[in-house]
Amino acid sequence: MTLTKTTSPLATFDRVESRVRSYSRSFPKMFDKAVGATIYDTSGKAYTDFLAGCSSLNYGHNDPDLKAALIEYVSADGIAHGLDMFTDAKEHFLANFEQYILKPRGMNHRVQFTGPTGANAVEAALKLARKVTGRNNVISFTNGFHGVTLGALAATGNGKHRAGASTPLSGVTRAAFDGYYGPEINTADLLDHQLSDPSSGVDAPAAIIVETVQGEGGLNAASKSWLQQIEKIARKHGALFIIDDIQAGCGRTGGFFSFDGMGLSPDLITMAKSLSGMGLPLAVTLIKPEHDIWKPAEHNGTFRGNNHAFITAAAALEKFWADDSFATEVAKKAEYLADRLGAIADEHDLGIKGRGMMLGVDAGSGEHAAAICKTCFTKGLIIETSGSFDQIVKVLAPLTISTEQLAAGLDTLEAAFDAVMGLHRAAAE
Amino acid sequence: MTLTKTTSPLATFDRVESRVRSYSRSFPKMFDKAVGATIYDTSGKAYTDFLAGCSSLNYGHNDPDLKAALIEYVSADGIAHGLDMFTDAKEHFLANFEQYILKPRGMNHRVQFTGPTGANAVEAALKLARKVTGRNNVISFTNGFHGVTLGALAATGNGKHRAGASTPLSGVTRAAFDGYYGPEINTADLLDHQLSDPSSGVDAPAAIIVETVQGEGGLNAASKSWLQQIEKIARKHGALFIIDDIQAGCGRTGGFFSFDGMGLSPDLITMAKSLSGMGLPLAVTLIKPEHDIWKPAEHNGTFRGNNHAFITAAAALEKFWADDSFATEVAKKAEYLADRLGAIADEHDLGIKGRGMMLGVDAGSGEHAAAICKTCFTKGLIIETSGSFDQIVKVLAPLTISTEQLAAGLDTLEAAFDAVMGLHRAAAE
Amino acid sequence: MTLTKTTSPLATFDRVESRVRSYSRSFPKMFDKAVGATIYDTSGKAYTDFLAGCSSLNYGHNDPDLKAALIEYVSADGIAHGLDMFTDAKEHFLANFEQYILKPRGMNHRVQFTGPTGANAVEAALKLARKVTGRNNVISFTNGFHGVTLGALAATGNGKHRAGASTPLSGVTRAAFDGYYGPEINTADLLDHQLSDPSSGVDAPAAIIVETVQGEGGLNAASKSWLQQIEKIARKHGALFIIDDIQAGCGRTGGFFSFDGMGLSPDLITMAKSLSGMGLPLAVTLIKPEHDIWKPAEHNGTFRGNNHAFITAAAALEKFWADDSFATEVAKKAEYLADRLGAIADEHDLGIKGRGMMLGVDAGSGEHAAAICKTCFTKGLIIETSGSFDQIVKVLAPLTISTEQLAAGLDTLEAAFDAVMGLHRAAAE
Amino acid sequence: MTLTKTTSPLATFDRVESRVRSYSRSFPKMFDKAVGATIYDTSGKAYTDFLAGCSSLNYGHNDPDLKAALIEYVSADGIAHGLDMFTDAKEHFLANFEQYILKPRGMNHRVQFTGPTGANAVEAALKLARKVTGRNNVISFTNGFHGVTLGALAATGNGKHRAGASTPLSGVTRAAFDGYYGPEINTADLLDHQLSDPSSGVDAPAAIIVETVQGEGGLNAASKSWLQQIEKIARKHGALFIIDDIQAGCGRTGGFFSFDGMGLSPDLITMAKSLSGMGLPLAVTLIKPEHDIWKPAEHNGTFRGNNHAFITAAAALEKFWADDSFATEVAKKAEYLADRLGAIADEHDLGIKGRGMMLGVDAGSGEHAAAICKTCFTKGLIIETSGSFDQIVKVLAPLTISTEQLAAGLDTLEAAFDAVMGLHRAAAE
Repeated sequence: MTLTKTTSPLATFDRVESRVRSYSRSFPKMFDKAVGATIYDTSGKAYTDFLAGCSSLNYGHNDPDLKAALIEYVSADGIAHGLDMFTDAKEHFLANFEQYILKPRGMNHRVQFTGPTGANAVEAALKLARKVTGRNNVISFTNGFHGVTLGALAATGNGKHRAGASTPLSGVTRAAFDGYYGPEINTADLLDHQLSDPSSGVDAPAAIIVETVQGEGGLNAASKSWLQQIEKIARKHGALFIIDDIQAGCGRTGGFFSFDGMGLSPDLITMAKSLSGMGLPLAVTLIKPEHDIWKPAEHNGTFRGNNHAFITAAAALEKFWADDSFATEVAKKAEYLADRLGAIADEHDLGIKGRGMMLGVDAGSGEHAAAICKTCFTKGLIIETSGSFDQIVKVLAPLTISTEQLAAGLDTLEAAFDAVMGLHRAAAE
Repeated sequence: MTLTKTTSPLATFDRVESRVRSYSRSFPKMFDKAVGATIYDTSGKAYTDFLAGCSSLNYGHNDPDLKAALIEYVSADGIAHGLDMFTDAKEHFLANFEQYILKPRGMNHRVQFTGPTGANAVEAALKLARKVTGRNNVISFTNGFHGVTLGALAATGNGKHRAGASTPLSGVTRAAFDGYYGPEINTADLLDHQLSDPSSGVDAPAAIIVETVQGEGGLNAASKSWLQQIEKIARKHGALFIIDDIQAGCGRTGGFFSFDGMGLSPDLITMAKSLSGMGLPLAVTLIKPEHDIWKPAEHNGTFRGNNHAFITAAAALEKFWADDSFATEVAKKAEYLADRLGAIADEHDLGIKGRGMMLGVDAGSGEHAAAICKTCFTKGLIIETSGSFDQIVKVLAPLTISTEQLAAGLDTLEAAFDAVMGLHRAAAE
Repeated sequence: MTLTKTTSPLATFDRVESRVRSYSRSFPKMFDKAVGATIYDTSGKAYTDFLAGCSSLNYGHNDPDLKAALIEYVSADGIAHGLDMFTDAKEHFLANFEQYILKPRGMNHRVQFTGPTGANAVEAALKLARKVTGRNNVISFTNGFHGVTLGALAATGNGKHRAGASTPLSGVTRAAFDGYYGPEINTADLLDHQLSDPSSGVDAPAAIIVETVQGEGGLNAASKSWLQQIEKIARKHGALFIIDDIQAGCGRTGGFFSFDGMGLSPDLITMAKSLSGMGLPLAVTLIKPEHDIWKPAEHNGTFRGNNHAFITAAAALEKFWADDSFATEVAKKAEYLADRLGAIADEHDLGIKGRGMMLGVDAGSGEHAAAICKTCFTKGLIIETSGSFDQIVKVLAPLTISTEQLAAGLDTLEAAFDAVMGLHRAAAE
Repeated sequence: MTLTKTTSPLATFDRVESRVRSYSRSFPKMFDKAVGATIYDTSGKAYTDFLAGCSSLNYGHNDPDLKAALIEYVSADGIAHGLDMFTDAKEHFLANFEQYILKPRGMNHRVQFTGPTGANAVEAALKLARKVTGRNNVISFTNGFHGVTLGALAATGNGKHRAGASTPLSGVTRAAFDGYYGPEINTADLLDHQLSDPSSGVDAPAAIIVETVQGEGGLNAASKSWLQQIEKIARKHGALFIIDDIQAGCGRTGGFFSFDGMGLSPDLITMAKSLSGMGLPLAVTLIKPEHDIWKPAEHNGTFRGNNHAFITAAAALEKFWADDSFATEVAKKAEYLADRLGAIADEHDLGIKGRGMMLGVDAGSGEHAAAICKTCFTKGLIIETSGSFDQIVKVLAPLTISTEQLAAGLDTLEAAFDAVMGLHRAAAE
């Protein structure tokens, strides 16, 4: 097969693609290859990728072992699409997931393949929580992001995405995330107060759904004690405790789950993004057995059996999670990252946000953050923003990035902060 | 990579997979390879696949050209996951889609990548229709199937899936599909009557969403004239006309679109299933330019840029839709299929349903249909049911199946009908 | 007390009353007294009242016995407002309702005081049906009117009122009323077909709510057999059968209930309008004992205990429903009314609508109907329109009107039809 | 008319009335007469009424002037039911409302007659706010009570009433009332924070609806500064500011409006309960002219024109609000009441709640409060509870009560506290 090269390939997008497109506006180049933390445009220019598919490429682009497994599988006419039938590839994924993830953590959750997007996993989790409890109301948090299909979108905080529904969203009550009202106010206490009051107007919840670190919402990281309290509140009020680990999971904050080591026991866990290891669409909802009361096919979807993704996911679990070495390596890099971002923040009197390899600098405004990212892109660094006002410059480098490439990328980022914030300071003076 | 073989691999599923699984209950074998219309279980037994991923594998399993394109792409470190950034692979898909699909039909729709499941495409279409019209109500049809995320599920008729929501579904008014109340009643007239009456209680619609053939709903096929009338009703009442071509599109009924040659001009079209050509997750919503009023990122999703699927989809468009030969071949097979199913139906005083290569026999009850499918499976034929009572035995063979294999599969099916319906007759006498 | 007379009293309304007002636009005079079927404006001009408070004044204005009972009660410091405490007046109403209404019909419904508007009674009925069945969906009919509070409004067909909500209305599925699609189509069959199909997309209903004659919707009168079939459908599908008898009840169609003699046994019945006998606010929901599963105060309201209304209601029950004489008299008048309206309709090639003393002529268009009513008003007759296009001229005379006054009013109406339709014919020729 | 006396009149209620009844359970006597602050049971026993129709009888039972005006009006065949036509009585009410209420306060609100229950007034206000702003979301407060029809109920906090809907309630976001989280946290700041954050998940509101004192919610009284801040927040975020003055208005807290003298300018105000002066059903929504964008009849109702209520309401306005003397008298009584309740509270280490003549004692638990009220009833005092746990003993005496009767009632209350709380203390020791 030959890829058609026209004189102006970007014109195709302008002609044929919907205006809804987003990231391509920030990075208006055409890309064709990618390896590890590097992505190339069609002119051959290399970029360091600090976006990593919004945390979908935690193991980098085209990891050689995952890629080899996939090529081997496809070459042998492995099943690509299997609906939800039993396949060798799926069995392998489940077995590895059990062996490397569930068993070491003493977990016995069952795996639901929900359709291969995070939103599908969230939709399934919310449906199931309502089915299990016979209740309708779901508690989600300020600045949370859970997807844009109507059920998931109701739980999502982002105003632009909510407005996109063009219909009222219902069934969700918003609670304040950890630290939302500042350090003085324990927002978990507020939630407990409302739920303990039969006349508060907040109906008894089917579930509380929470991200441990809000990736889209501004890298707000919940503390262990707050999360423990939220879990207790869920139990106390008869709600299922759901952790949406779609962006923060798969090693992004160090452990496989973002809540590893926190003593939490979520009833349901949603995963997607980096689960397939190579960026292929895959999503699951993990379910404690006692809640797995689905009737057959009650929630389904055509692409639940994306077997290519099972192959790369199984390989990734084996490669990265068979022992602690990867987690240890990530922890080291996270420390380095925190040091470097801390220095940048200090230099400009800014704050840092996040946890693990999910860290950013609050640039103070969306304008500054956008200018910084734009500057980075001209210097060969792909990086994006996050937060209510897109004010957080967010580093989501592949976890497998080499120390050298990470350092170099951070040098570029530091220079961009200096350039933009320096200008800003100059203008202010 | 070696796939782990345990003594009892199916036990893994029993231990680790959610009880929501469905098709694996009908076909309790573990499969590992598939080529064309044949799928193999791990014991090496071959099955003819008359399910074809619920029409996601119209070009068969692992088409050699698509497979080659994919292996070449992966081997060369082509981008796997690109969010919605411009990539070579995406450009190629869009260019081919324009050249082979849109231009020959005089269409100028824009392509929205919506997240790679049909439900995502439907969610996007319904959101956009509401945004364009400023209205909330959507008309969908009895027995329609549009996905199980909450927005799409509201438009879906199936009671089991609706109950799975465990929360009321709103924003949709149900109208009767073509022929729903028998041949005497033109259901389009009923709809027009309601919409023309300001006091009917049916609010002015944002959209009318319809499948030309209801794949899940029982292979109900709408007539050309009825569809034309529905489009006129949409125009008359200010609603967008949406065709959900997820199951019936991509050649299943002959043309690329199931409505080719019907003189229809849908405002929005949803596609998924066979779009990637090889069963990889890919979904799009096609939008007339005047309705493409999305703000950037208003609807988004992590896996919008499943570049592997772009590669196989682009190759499929080039291979099968560059000229009429494939469509002609499908038309011939469809004729043969209709003859054979007609004969089966006549033999047992049953009716046939559907259109093109999306054809089935109404076995009269779900029990009969299930027994027939079970018998087929023991004889090496994978086939499933459809309809309100799962009473339709549905043939969804790959369109690329050889005449011989199609004939042999139908022989098996015929024998199963004889066995089951004969027994039934005997019991009745 | 002296009523303030300013030089231009209507200016007060213009200054101080909301623009939402409606009937005062059709009858722009200030009224101050009313007796029987006659209402007087402040200049002393007498009008015959063929509107009768939209059927709230079935026994005429200020019936002397009801008025005497009220004056006696107030003079003796009878309790006016008693929340829902036990009062003498309430006991008297309940006892009379049991004696004159329930017992003779073999009914054992319990009476819920719901807040004194029809909408409150409907809200209570819908809540209770959902509570009893554990289901959410309610079936209501095209052109039905059940009130404008959000729960009742969802069941109401009128587009203007629905739009007034400015928020989507949910929880209700619309079915076609008797004859909605013309005489050839039995709409009850259509409903049964949908409810019998688990994949129709119409969720199992909590209730079917129906008016026997649609007062606001255009005087559409359901046949006995259709209503019986609807009741059977409700039973068959596990739904409560609710008759909204707010406008058609209290003798308007002959019997106390509009369904007297039809062999129906509604689970819930809503009543308001003429229930108090004198136009005072009073509404009830009648509940079969087995469905009376309310918890104390689960539905409440401040004005449930409008004791003045209990007094007049009790007196009305005793005066008009202790024997058959009133019903017989109404039947005779209804016959006369039908003859006269039939003659008017024949003269102008129009049709008549309705049943009993709830009869009208379809003037063919809202413009004609409005012109006819306007002409009547100048001649001292108050009469209004109904229907999807306000095209029905509706006679809702007090049931106690004298034959002479009824005849005179109909003479006026006849002349107005002649004048307006004659003009129209002339213009058309 | 003779009221039927059976041997056991209460048996009628048991036989014929729905189990939903509430207050009659606390006061299981049959009442027949009432004057001022005294209500009599049918045995002639007198009770002091500290419930006053839940603040619907602020001017006492059967005020002689109001009663005389009503008898005169009825005797003269004044119109009882006038739909929403112009009547003398209505004009008189509007003129008096303008003269005695609006003008002295520099207000130019228009009066909408909404159907004669508070819930109707709230439904109209919420609809209109949504229509004016084109937004859906309404902010209401913890422990707020606004009625039990579905639209109003969504804004109501009480869990029992919400559950009565048996369907999810939507369109409302709950904010914390003044002091809800204790004195340290300014809940208005929390609300402003959420509304200022585009990613908070709290959609831009159509309205903020608030009671200045939450009558049902536990006599929580908002401070002037908090209410001013809430109004500012409404303005800042483009929402209408609605005060629900149904229970706290009509003099209950001193001024005619509960917010008199607070420098507030609500866009919409809902009123009902004591508006008619004599407990007759009447409700209005007051609308700033710029928001009075209703189309004719967009919100309607049969009993909007309860002319008897106009007569007594007009008389009450003239009698009590023509000058300051009534307000001054109420203020004095309120001071006395506060002293007495303060003493009771101090005696038992309890707190007092409320403002003006809407004051109560927090008995610590619903059990204590119920026992206290029960004791009072045996001593001839009618009094009820309020609050999330029915723990507040609430004094809602008629504002016109004599000082002697008020003192005597409070003596009874004091004794009941002593008896119940003393026992409790004894038990605890």
